[in-house]
Amino acid sequence: MSDLVLTTFDWVPEMPRGFVRDLRVRWALEEAGLAYRVESVPFRDRQPEHFAHQPFGQVPWLTDGDFSIFESGAILLYLGERSEALMPSDPRGRSEVLEWLFAALNSVEMASLPWSLLKFMREPVPKFFDEFLNLHRLAHMETVLAGREWLAGAFSVADILMADVLRLVDRFDGLAAYPTCRRYVARATARPAFVKAHADQMAHFAAAD
Amino acid sequence: MSDLVLTTFDWVPEMPRGFVRDLRVRWALEEAGLAYRVESVPFRDRQPEHFAHQPFGQVPWLTDGDFSIFESGAILLYLGERSEALMPSDPRGRSEVLEWLFAALNSVEMASLPWSLLKFMREPVPKFFDEFLNLHRLAHMETVLAGREWLAGAFSVADILMADVLRLVDRFDGLAAYPTCRRYVARATARPAFVKAHADQMAHFAAAD
Repeated sequence: MSDLVLTTFDWVPEMPRGFVRDLRVRWALEEAGLAYRVESVPFRDRQPEHFAHQPFGQVPWLTDGDFSIFESGAILLYLGERSEALMPSDPRGRSEVLEWLFAALNSVEMASLPWSLLKFMREPVPKFFDEFLNLHRLAHMETVLAGREWLAGAFSVADILMADVLRLVDRFDGLAAYPTCRRYVARATARPAFVKAHADQMAHFAAAD
Repeated sequence: MSDLVLTTFDWVPEMPRGFVRDLRVRWALEEAGLAYRVESVPFRDRQPEHFAHQPFGQVPWLTDGDFSIFESGAILLYLGERSEALMPSDPRGRSEVLEWLFAALNSVEMASLPWSLLKFMREPVPKFFDEFLNLHRLAHMETVLAGREWLAGAFSVADILMADVLRLVDRFDGLAAYPTCRRYVARATARPAFVKAHADQMAHFAAAD
């Protein structure tokens, strides 16, 4: 039996299904062909043991033997160091993956999540949030992706994060003006590892209904 | 002459001074005692060479010989691997720094930046942005920091990021209900490396007025 255990919620409402962040970790594990199993913690009644693994009471976290790690970015970096399918081991290739991994989380998602939350809540989007996402992020991503299939040469954990970030924007039709970004999301989510990870997450939450 | 070159803007308006992200890199370089010099690119008229180093037209980026890296998170990780003063080299200590480094950028700043932008623009803060920051992030950080001086044992790059993220919340008086977070920010920003980094950034922009 595998030592890698991914922990997620036992159940979530309909809306976030397919977008809960355990998906990022499932996707990476599938790409790397690493064996793992999935365990659950209560969504409704979060216990002290939960906070001991994830101080904000969120998911996912990963355990590897007696080693426990939270934050999907940190988990993907941890897995990336175990598989060339996720991150090259040469310093230059690795550094390129790292800058795009942080760009996905701290530049693009930093602008896209507020926008998506406002769309989800059906609240008006203030002009500066709209410009932050469109003018200062997506317009530049459209240029970046025009010249390449994946962000850092070969497919990597940076693409898992960037595609998952852009996928949520696409859900609220925010990529209509960015066909190259949209094709990138389609290319990434057509990978068998994503398809399996997504189906597994949907089945996991459906089983609890 | 040092090979490490940090590039930032030649000038920025009054408001962001002391908060431009080159500060995170300056702070890390000062903590590690690494020699570096600072170069500038135009704030007003951003050139193709700028975008070649930083695809969103932002700052900072760091060059190390012919090696160029953008995203302050990636730069701090790059420097962390060069100095025990920034990140321990043992796998467990390193992993703990990594999870808190990502927690600062992708959990806390993800909630604090929208809140700070709204405060800065003097716009009302929707209830869900307020709860995202206070209920789901700062309340938990208050608990986490009650038990420790620094996030991952010794001071590390995770503290540089978390303290800088919380410092911006504090600027808009968002830490009034979180005395432990506020003491943590005060402790971090009293370090000689922060004081020098901050003074250097202020002087850099003042010189261009």
